[in-house]
Amino acid sequence: MTTHYFNNSENRLHNELFGAEAFYDLDTTGNQAKALTKIVEGDTCVVATPQGKLVRFSRYIFRRFALQKDGADKQVQVLFGDLLDSHLLSKAEAAIDIDYGVLFDKKGNFKRASVHVDPARSNMIGERFFGEIPGVPVGSTFDSRIALSSAKVHRPTQAGISGAAKEGADSIVISGGYEDDQDLGDEVVYTGHGGQLNGKQVKDQEMLVGNLALVVSEMEGFPVRVVRGPDKNNSFSPPSGYRYDGLFRVDSHWHEIGKAGFKIWRYRLVKLQAEAVPSEISGVGTEGLPTGENSNPVRKSQTVQRIVRDTKQAKNVKMHYGHACQVCGTRIMTATGPYAEAAHIRPLGAPHNGPDTSDNILCLCPNHHVMFDFGAFSIEDDRSLIGIEGSLSIRPGHRIDIKHLAFHREKYSNRAK
Amino acid sequence: MTTHYFNNSENRLHNELFGAEAFYDLDTTGNQAKALTKIVEGDTCVVATPQGKLVRFSRYIFRRFALQKDGADKQVQVLFGDLLDSHLLSKAEAAIDIDYGVLFDKKGNFKRASVHVDPARSNMIGERFFGEIPGVPVGSTFDSRIALSSAKVHRPTQAGISGAAKEGADSIVISGGYEDDQDLGDEVVYTGHGGQLNGKQVKDQEMLVGNLALVVSEMEGFPVRVVRGPDKNNSFSPPSGYRYDGLFRVDSHWHEIGKAGFKIWRYRLVKLQAEAVPSEISGVGTEGLPTGENSNPVRKSQTVQRIVRDTKQAKNVKMHYGHACQVCGTRIMTATGPYAEAAHIRPLGAPHNGPDTSDNILCLCPNHHVMFDFGAFSIEDDRSLIGIEGSLSIRPGHRIDIKHLAFHREKYSNRAK
Repeated sequence: MTTHYFNNSENRLHNELFGAEAFYDLDTTGNQAKALTKIVEGDTCVVATPQGKLVRFSRYIFRRFALQKDGADKQVQVLFGDLLDSHLLSKAEAAIDIDYGVLFDKKGNFKRASVHVDPARSNMIGERFFGEIPGVPVGSTFDSRIALSSAKVHRPTQAGISGAAKEGADSIVISGGYEDDQDLGDEVVYTGHGGQLNGKQVKDQEMLVGNLALVVSEMEGFPVRVVRGPDKNNSFSPPSGYRYDGLFRVDSHWHEIGKAGFKIWRYRLVKLQAEAVPSEISGVGTEGLPTGENSNPVRKSQTVQRIVRDTKQAKNVKMHYGHACQVCGTRIMTATGPYAEAAHIRPLGAPHNGPDTSDNILCLCPNHHVMFDFGAFSIEDDRSLIGIEGSLSIRPGHRIDIKHLAFHREKYSNRAK
Repeated sequence: MTTHYFNNSENRLHNELFGAEAFYDLDTTGNQAKALTKIVEGDTCVVATPQGKLVRFSRYIFRRFALQKDGADKQVQVLFGDLLDSHLLSKAEAAIDIDYGVLFDKKGNFKRASVHVDPARSNMIGERFFGEIPGVPVGSTFDSRIALSSAKVHRPTQAGISGAAKEGADSIVISGGYEDDQDLGDEVVYTGHGGQLNGKQVKDQEMLVGNLALVVSEMEGFPVRVVRGPDKNNSFSPPSGYRYDGLFRVDSHWHEIGKAGFKIWRYRLVKLQAEAVPSEISGVGTEGLPTGENSNPVRKSQTVQRIVRDTKQAKNVKMHYGHACQVCGTRIMTATGPYAEAAHIRPLGAPHNGPDTSDNILCLCPNHHVMFDFGAFSIEDDRSLIGIEGSLSIRPGHRIDIKHLAFHREKYSNRAK
């Protein structure tokens, strides 16, 4: 659900002018009229009304609008909805507020626009739209990169990755441009960009622009639209043109020496299961919000940032360490027992296919598990840590295969970049 | 894949007796013959051979067996496979080994049995089988609790929860026995056991036996078989008898005052999506192991221990804190940027339906996120922490709704038990 901001700078009393539940009114023509077409029932609306040196921010759930005449006998579109809450803040407070700061410019002054749609409260970050494009179902096809761009599915007409370092990546095109790509259908091993000349890898790839954007999407859990282009060597490719194949999450990234002998960045993307996500969330469907709930999350507003897997061997290793982290010794206690996570040194699944055996598993606290998976530290054969201080604690009876440690150092360590 | 252990106490030289790749032989009748019927291609076999005061442990991937005659002209079943690795350990070392300790009794002596299937290396923990029962597909129906028990789908004939505190819970039956249960199909809110008399709740439930077992399954990510029994008030129930409805994971647990006025434990279970899990793993299918791989995890050997969700509001809150934890100040840095998690104070989704708004979100490190979700700490209205030392850091511009803090204290805090 998008959040819309309205600057009630004239301090109009909408209740008195238009009746109960009225909270704002807009011109029937011009920019204000256009703004209204973007509102749907259930959206959040924030109305900011100056009160002396303070500003009152009132949040409403939009229900409907109606054409009415205002005090000056002018025809206006009136917005009606349910009041959620109301806060009286100084401008200094409001300017740094998570929810209301968007209404102020860098100097702390009220923005002039009377209607403002907050991009960060929709699926937008900057001009970038994350998630499924409305009206473009999975399987939609496009004749050309231009058509794909016009439909906003993948905006760059040349680059394979649509993204910026600070915003994340919103889409990629798989089209056989990189000899190291692997396509398994619901899993894709995708090669980063850069270092190519006339279709050949001629130098190392760097962790910049689109390559970095894909990592941001991984760390934040942003969904990435995957488009497949023509590629006679890929059985998952469309026979011609471009096909939108759904939302994927970036599961992991690493570096390696590609077939041409230069360093490349690689990304494992896994398809987000449309069936799986809704089952964990009670969507509001089309009936709008249930009574008494502030803001019930809809199905598409959530994606997965991180999945921690359990395996058969996981419990054995965790028990062996009494659920204490092999890096910091932390043992997370809850009322019902200790909690730890099993980290596979060489990752499970394609393309790495690490084994689920105790010699490939560490017992870590969640913090060090995240750091290990993102390559913030790696482990030498002598157990000393690379990237952070300290050494890995290994209890007698736990043999770790140093081949797996070498694999992690080589592919994941940040220091090896 | 199950691991099988073989005690080669007679120090037979299988290669010399039976040819290359032979690693063990078994009687064609009696207990040893039965053991063999449980082995399938791809299973791991550990052969322990005494060598003076030491023991050599050799691991093989089982490929096939053949009937051959041994040195004494006796017909035996010979096992053939690929050698994985080999370790020479003292008995003292072996007795505490994660992988080989199972071959020794509590005194450190070699177990007499020459064939041993390690329950912890299969889907078994103790006598408890986790996951789908072979030959019992989702939708299978049973006339009675006795039939359900005989099929090993849910072994207790009275109790709703099959489980023990140290092992976890492997199955539950939903049959309308508790007035507080909620069944949404793929999501179930299930009430713990205890405190009932003649079908009425007459006292508080305690965190013991099955109630604790369900929490262990939650913390370790063990799958729980869900069976539905007859209940005319539940549209998801079978018209008669009992139906196996698939594997669920325990998503969360909390306590509350039930309709009868007594404390009850409640569990949210979410169906594991069969389609979702395999897509993240490259299964080995029926062809056995790919060449060159030690032990490729099969599809059913993994379940989910923990899912961290991303939401629209998550990034705003994390940015506001520069990805530093509001409890400990930790800011996890990776080469490509900081990592933090957004914790919803009142959980998203049914039955709590917490809103995805900044006043319901904290920025936490993964460790404190786990602790908060499991109720290891809770937060007072004045920001001080309950359960651990310290107080919540709140930056100007982030308003937290104390109603949500109260909700978490009331339902999740371990101290409120």
